[in-house]
Amino acid sequence: MTDKVITAAALAIGDELLSGRTRDKNIGHLANALTQQGIDLKEVRIVADEQEDIVSALNALRSRYSYVFTSGGIGPTHDDITADAIAAAFGIGITHDPRAMALLAEHYSNLDMEFTTARKRMARIPDGADLIDNPVSVAPGFRVENVYVMAGVPSVFQAMLESVLPMLEGGAKMLSETVYCPHGEGTIGDHLGHIQKSHPETSIGSYPKYDGEKFYTNIVVRARNETKMLAAVSEVNMMLEKLNSE
Amino acid sequence: MTDKVITAAALAIGDELLSGRTRDKNIGHLANALTQQGIDLKEVRIVADEQEDIVSALNALRSRYSYVFTSGGIGPTHDDITADAIAAAFGIGITHDPRAMALLAEHYSNLDMEFTTARKRMARIPDGADLIDNPVSVAPGFRVENVYVMAGVPSVFQAMLESVLPMLEGGAKMLSETVYCPHGEGTIGDHLGHIQKSHPETSIGSYPKYDGEKFYTNIVVRARNETKMLAAVSEVNMMLEKLNSE
Repeated sequence: MTDKVITAAALAIGDELLSGRTRDKNIGHLANALTQQGIDLKEVRIVADEQEDIVSALNALRSRYSYVFTSGGIGPTHDDITADAIAAAFGIGITHDPRAMALLAEHYSNLDMEFTTARKRMARIPDGADLIDNPVSVAPGFRVENVYVMAGVPSVFQAMLESVLPMLEGGAKMLSETVYCPHGEGTIGDHLGHIQKSHPETSIGSYPKYDGEKFYTNIVVRARNETKMLAAVSEVNMMLEKLNSE
Repeated sequence: MTDKVITAAALAIGDELLSGRTRDKNIGHLANALTQQGIDLKEVRIVADEQEDIVSALNALRSRYSYVFTSGGIGPTHDDITADAIAAAFGIGITHDPRAMALLAEHYSNLDMEFTTARKRMARIPDGADLIDNPVSVAPGFRVENVYVMAGVPSVFQAMLESVLPMLEGGAKMLSETVYCPHGEGTIGDHLGHIQKSHPETSIGSYPKYDGEKFYTNIVVRARNETKMLAAVSEVNMMLEKLNSE
């Protein structure tokens, strides 16, 4: 086990996510997968299919975090501009990549479908990028330095992420334990603040839920060290026992 | 009808959104509500409960867009730091607001519950802010200049947004029409690119879907002018008829 902290950001790209037409399904999936691997997702951004917006978000994120994962905008139509925007962000060239062209040419030949100019757009890959395998629909994602560029269709995004995850450096895994609390946050807030202060190497979060009639709370204790986590959990449980007996 | 373009950004705040423990439900709801009101949601960010991250995201967004809507981090516990972060971002003071204190004092008195130090945290409001009504659980949101600060619990967020929406200036409403296309993007991409070029005042998006066996596509034509939108839709339909008869 390592104490190294590895951070990540997600950049979801697409007008449809901002108009409400499509609800993003990739961010939550990515968040879970990274947490399981001990990588801290620290920031998410969603931007439109506009080159300037993609470039400025990508450059802000890639300099700040260990990894950046993008979703969306690598299909065959005119509004799929992610690959060109990534190349612009890195200041590198972009061409129809021979490896991707070969993969796609074979795929459409097998399907007896025309390899149209539009479909060839999906082979546009920034110079020097590694390809990311797409077992669902062949057209590859790609990696440039610490940026992983993947599709927006959830089944394709998930398949690409599967092949990317084993290649990532995992950090010290963040452990967590959730304690159900029948009280609202107002009842426990003062106590919880004190427990947090006496357990500085844990992160104690409280997440209010509302069931339509009353508030209850999930108290989540997170730490990279199990002993320290359990010590804080034990104090949380003592607090709840005390409250319940009052 | 006005031609003015009103823009917005969303800032969702909370460690639990980034760990995957909680899936955000507010962004999609906000996106829909703003689209219906003719306001363009242009960017979304999700950041952790860390003051520096909240301040830097908020300052980037509030200078760039007409409105910023935040969700999360205004509850009674130590990890609810949004109100203080907003005050820091604007460089203004923050105190226990007398209006909010009165609302909450009455609420807890009615419930025969103690108005604890933790609950009083929910009355911390930046100087000069307007309050946003919370019909679900009383503790108010607030507005500072063009920034609307709301709760993260979806039922409370939605109720707060209801009271905010009528106060917003609506832009020229973006109209949209979706055309179902049985073909994948590769088949239509070239044609669609040409149609987009000849209808510059529309925005033609194509959204690939995968049903587990094959790709189909939703083609969405958006414009602020109905006549221009319908002209582009008609060309899209002609393209599909031609493809289907081939």
